Amino acid sequence: MKTYLDCIPCFFDQALRAGRIATDDEKLLKRILDELGVMLSHISLESTPPEIGRLVYRKVREITKNPDPFRELKRESTQQALALYPSLKRTIEESHDSLLAAIRIAIAGNVIDFGPSGSFDIDTAIKEALEKDFAICDYSAFKNYLVKSERILYIGDNAGETVFDRLLIEQMKKPVVYVVRETPVINDAIAEDAIQAGLDKVATIISSGTDAPGTIPSICGREFIHLLGESEFVLAKGQGNYEGLSNENRPIFFLLKTKCRIIADDIGVTEGDIVLKGMNV
Amino acid sequence: MKTYLDCIPCFFDQALRAGRIATDDEKLLKRILDELGVMLSHISLESTPPEIGRLVYRKVREITKNPDPFRELKRESTQQALALYPSLKRTIEESHDSLLAAIRIAIAGNVIDFGPSGSFDIDTAIKEALEKDFAICDYSAFKNYLVKSERILYIGDNAGETVFDRLLIEQMKKPVVYVVRETPVINDAIAEDAIQAGLDKVATIISSGTDAPGTIPSICGREFIHLLGESEFVLAKGQGNYEGLSNENRPIFFLLKTKCRIIADDIGVTEGDIVLKGMNV
Repeated sequence: MKTYLDCIPCFFDQALRAGRIATDDEKLLKRILDELGVMLSHISLESTPPEIGRLVYRKVREITKNPDPFRELKRESTQQALALYPSLKRTIEESHDSLLAAIRIAIAGNVIDFGPSGSFDIDTAIKEALEKDFAICDYSAFKNYLVKSERILYIGDNAGETVFDRLLIEQMKKPVVYVVRETPVINDAIAEDAIQAGLDKVATIISSGTDAPGTIPSICGREFIHLLGESEFVLAKGQGNYEGLSNENRPIFFLLKTKCRIIADDIGVTEGDIVLKGMNV
Repeated sequence: MKTYLDCIPCFFDQALRAGRIATDDEKLLKRILDELGVMLSHISLESTPPEIGRLVYRKVREITKNPDPFRELKRESTQQALALYPSLKRTIEESHDSLLAAIRIAIAGNVIDFGPSGSFDIDTAIKEALEKDFAICDYSAFKNYLVKSERILYIGDNAGETVFDRLLIEQMKKPVVYVVRETPVINDAIAEDAIQAGLDKVATIISSGTDAPGTIPSICGREFIHLLGESEFVLAKGQGNYEGLSNENRPIFFLLKTKCRIIADDIGVTEGDIVLKGMNV
């Protein structure tokens, strides 16, 4: 997905929010916004949002000298999600379609996001994801790919959401390679977050090789690119992965809740909708 | 009021919204945001928001070569408000406290604003302003000043809102000088908008001498500054006038609905609150 003009004010909002988590020094925060303004004036909208987001969050880390402002928030999100794990597991197992229930739960976890809006309520999100109609639901195709594929490449998104992904992985009953970001960006999951969520017990964890808050193949690591090329079944969570992969010419399932109007428009749904979209399937 | 860090993303939002009213050329819109980013990096937060807003909207007019993008919207807003005039006049006259009812109606008109949010519903605003409790209501002081003053300096805000101001001016039953902006900025009223609203029948219209979307004495014209200096009773409508005048060391009554969290915090109220605040009274 290309970057829209509306993404630009949002990058300033995101930089300010992330900056405030990293520091309370107003001068440093002003400097972040100043340097961002100059930097964005040199960037084309042909870049995808996570390509630009990567530079935005690098700028925040560089100026605040805080390499991982969201570390504590990520640990808390994962702990909160782990506390919910037993009851969510029961909900899924007691459902008449456990796989679909697990998909819904995995979407609920996608609200744990400090990027585009910065506020969420996980209990409301779970309730909503279990009841709400999908705006797009390519569930039959999803099941077909699940049956015929030997392995799933599951591209994760945020820390905490990882626990919800684990519940879906446990229902898919196939070998899974779970992809995290290489180094910290916003509250996106890196390897240590996935391990805290227990994903190492149910999947092989690898890194995308980048600090972009999304998956942009041109800047990903070789191991990930190799796996992406040979994987029959790719499942990508969240907006950032959609933004980076929506122009790929290969089958991918996107699983997300739309949290901004621009991405919702790009997908052809409404902000707040839940989506299981099979692209090129 | 000084400019807060949170105002910066909002300036980009406002520039994009105003730019889109002036043009649909994406390249020009990107150029507005690019040049704004560079410009804002050189501006201190010690400036007031309307000082910066003035430069933001100048940039939009300069790049789009459209000297008054909001002209048609202003004319429509005034026409819509004029259509409401007879029934609002009746509401005020039938009220047990007609002056207070007229103050409430004048606040309702303050929602006609294409700056900070760009969307509003005037019917809902009228209903709300007539019923809602004031967060600050210095009505006794307002009446005292009204009784003892020979003339009122009434600093207007937006086109359309002008009609609602006329209703209050008619209730105040004193000579009024009504202040408009010198040249177009957002949908702020200039002389032709005030005349369309019929304000020339109930007040002397003068200009602040500036294109700032608020009243900043240091850049206002001599006629206005002279009147400001000698006026006992100054009434300023809306956020932009509050932002520009809130540090003045003289009595001023501010009449507004808070439409952004930052200004609400500065006043000490909640976003959405209605306020009649007497400063230094």
